[in-house]
Amino acid sequence: MLVGAIEAGGTKFVCAIGNEKNEIIERVSFPTTTPEETLRSVFNFFDQYSLASIGIGSFGPIDINESSDTYGYILSTPKIPWKNFNFLGAMKERYSIPIGWTTDVNAAALGESKLGAAKGLKNTMYITIGTGIGAGAIVNGELLAGIGHPEMGHLLVRPHDKDGYEGFCPYHGNCLEGMAAGPSINGRLGRAGKDVDVDHEVWGFMSYYIGQALVAYTVILRPERIVLGGGVMNAPGMLEKVKKQFSSLLANYVPIPELDNYLVKPGLRDNAGITGSIILANEVK
Amino acid sequence: MLVGAIEAGGTKFVCAIGNEKNEIIERVSFPTTTPEETLRSVFNFFDQYSLASIGIGSFGPIDINESSDTYGYILSTPKIPWKNFNFLGAMKERYSIPIGWTTDVNAAALGESKLGAAKGLKNTMYITIGTGIGAGAIVNGELLAGIGHPEMGHLLVRPHDKDGYEGFCPYHGNCLEGMAAGPSINGRLGRAGKDVDVDHEVWGFMSYYIGQALVAYTVILRPERIVLGGGVMNAPGMLEKVKKQFSSLLANYVPIPELDNYLVKPGLRDNAGITGSIILANEVK
Ligand SMILES: Nc1ncnc2c1ncn2[C@@H]1O[C@H](COP(=O)(O)OP(=O)(O)O)[C@@H](O)[C@H]1O
Ligand SMILES: Nc1ncnc2c1ncn2[C@@H]1O[C@H](COP(=O)(O)OP(=O)(O)O)[C@@H](O)[C@H]1O
Ligand SMILES: [Zn+2]
Ligand SMILES: [Zn+2]
Repeated sequence: MLVGAIEAGGTKFVCAIGNEKNEIIERVSFPTTTPEETLRSVFNFFDQYSLASIGIGSFGPIDINESSDTYGYILSTPKIPWKNFNFLGAMKERYSIPIGWTTDVNAAALGESKLGAAKGLKNTMYITIGTGIGAGAIVNGELLAGIGHPEMGHLLVRPHDKDGYEGFCPYHGNCLEGMAAGPSINGRLGRAGKDVDVDHEVWGFMSYYIGQALVAYTVILRPERIVLGGGVMNAPGMLEKVKKQFSSLLANYVPIPELDNYLVKPGLRDNAGITGSIILANEVK
Repeated sequence: MLVGAIEAGGTKFVCAIGNEKNEIIERVSFPTTTPEETLRSVFNFFDQYSLASIGIGSFGPIDINESSDTYGYILSTPKIPWKNFNFLGAMKERYSIPIGWTTDVNAAALGESKLGAAKGLKNTMYITIGTGIGAGAIVNGELLAGIGHPEMGHLLVRPHDKDGYEGFCPYHGNCLEGMAAGPSINGRLGRAGKDVDVDHEVWGFMSYYIGQALVAYTVILRPERIVLGGGVMNAPGMLEKVKKQFSSLLANYVPIPELDNYLVKPGLRDNAGITGSIILANEVK
């Protein structure tokens, strides 16, 4: 029994075929252009197989509220051709099989929690710190969602005394994403993170903001483990800096697991999202 | 079929008898002294009835992790005789019936969400801003808990430019609780909130911090409604000030219900906690 999976990113689409053990059987990837052209590539790939179900983890914001008129749509995105596009509807029109629908970061959270660095735990989180900041949470084994999916990157953080940067979030300026996602480095220094020395003070600023966010997630959700991914977390020593800030800010207020088991790197690397979409497909069957 | 309910506060205990419709049949209250003396009063009251189950909402922090050695204990509390007291154990020794166990604020959240101002909704929150700040969340109809209960009062907030106060939280100084719970008014002005003029700038500071916290809860949990209770929310105009700050800080980033239906006052007033404990008792049966 095969399932289809999509990791729909703003830059590229990854499509895969998986089996009931959540293994990746086949995998392709192509650039994200217009919905028509991109979906034609998706269809060409999936049409080769007889699929029992499909799982989609999409860039967003998306509408995941089943009782909403725009359920299955991509909502306000700067990628104009995709704005208000009925992604799930277009997939359902082509394939009369169950289709699971969530955000890209939720899919990655599912992947990491079921088969990656948080495997075996029931209350976990995955956060990606890259071009933007997003996170997904698993609460009691299920993806957390209320009237919509979380937008955990937009917490308001306490500015660092020595950090004069105003932040790049178009909504909030200096929210977490505005101050700690990758482009904030370019915004401060005019060059990309990979070209910034490991001792530069900017890493201290960013880990201070990330540490604050981790305190918020910790006191609100009390997860068993938080997996930290995304390009920024690849900066040398970043995870250690974040751990230090987090510890010092939490000030032992609530008990957490041993720090090295609490804040961890992803286990599935680039496959977290697509693996999560396969899991979603197997769950929706 | 009757159930017993306890709202165990640090100052007073409320005990009640409820029916299967979650109605309060009988209700008593007495001061919180030592565990022995206080529980004697609880036993004297409950012993008059034949109870099917009991629900307890207790001051804390408490251990709600069923796989923990200290499950059912009150943990570190400044109320020394209660520290490390096996509250649930003492109740179970007396009564061989199912006993539900959660925090006082979780019980109030349950009460407000099932029968109060958030009735009929599946994703809600209750926050109390009083001597301290605590909150409980209902996610998909169930109380949110990970490796422990939330401690949502200890979010780190962005200090207001004009607020020189350092905060009274013994762990964090200027966290949400340290800056916006009732004692912060005494800390700033040397008098209690009820004696402070409605136009005083302190209300602006406090509503700024509360608004930030509401943004965090909103982007992380995406609830359908947030109920705001506790003494501080009784200050004239406070709810309106909080709404204004929240709106301006969220900056329309995520869609929320109409503001007047989103941030609301409690529906059960003083009965939220004890009603929640009755609901808990009926659920645990
Ligand atoms: N080694 C690094 N150190 C710091 N920042 C990095 C590093 N590698 C990539 N980044 C930053 O991470 C961002 C890209 O994140 P990534 O997770 O790869 O992509 P996306 O978020 O778009 O999916 C860019 O802003 C980039 O500058
Ligand atoms: N009208 C009011 N305006 C501002 N603060 C108030 C008001 N009434 C009570 N408070 C403050 O609320 C706190 C008590 O909160 P309350 O919810 O009644 O009790 P507790 O949190 O101890 O259960 C005290 O710090 C008190 O000063
Ligand atoms: Zn933002
Ligand atoms: Zn604190």
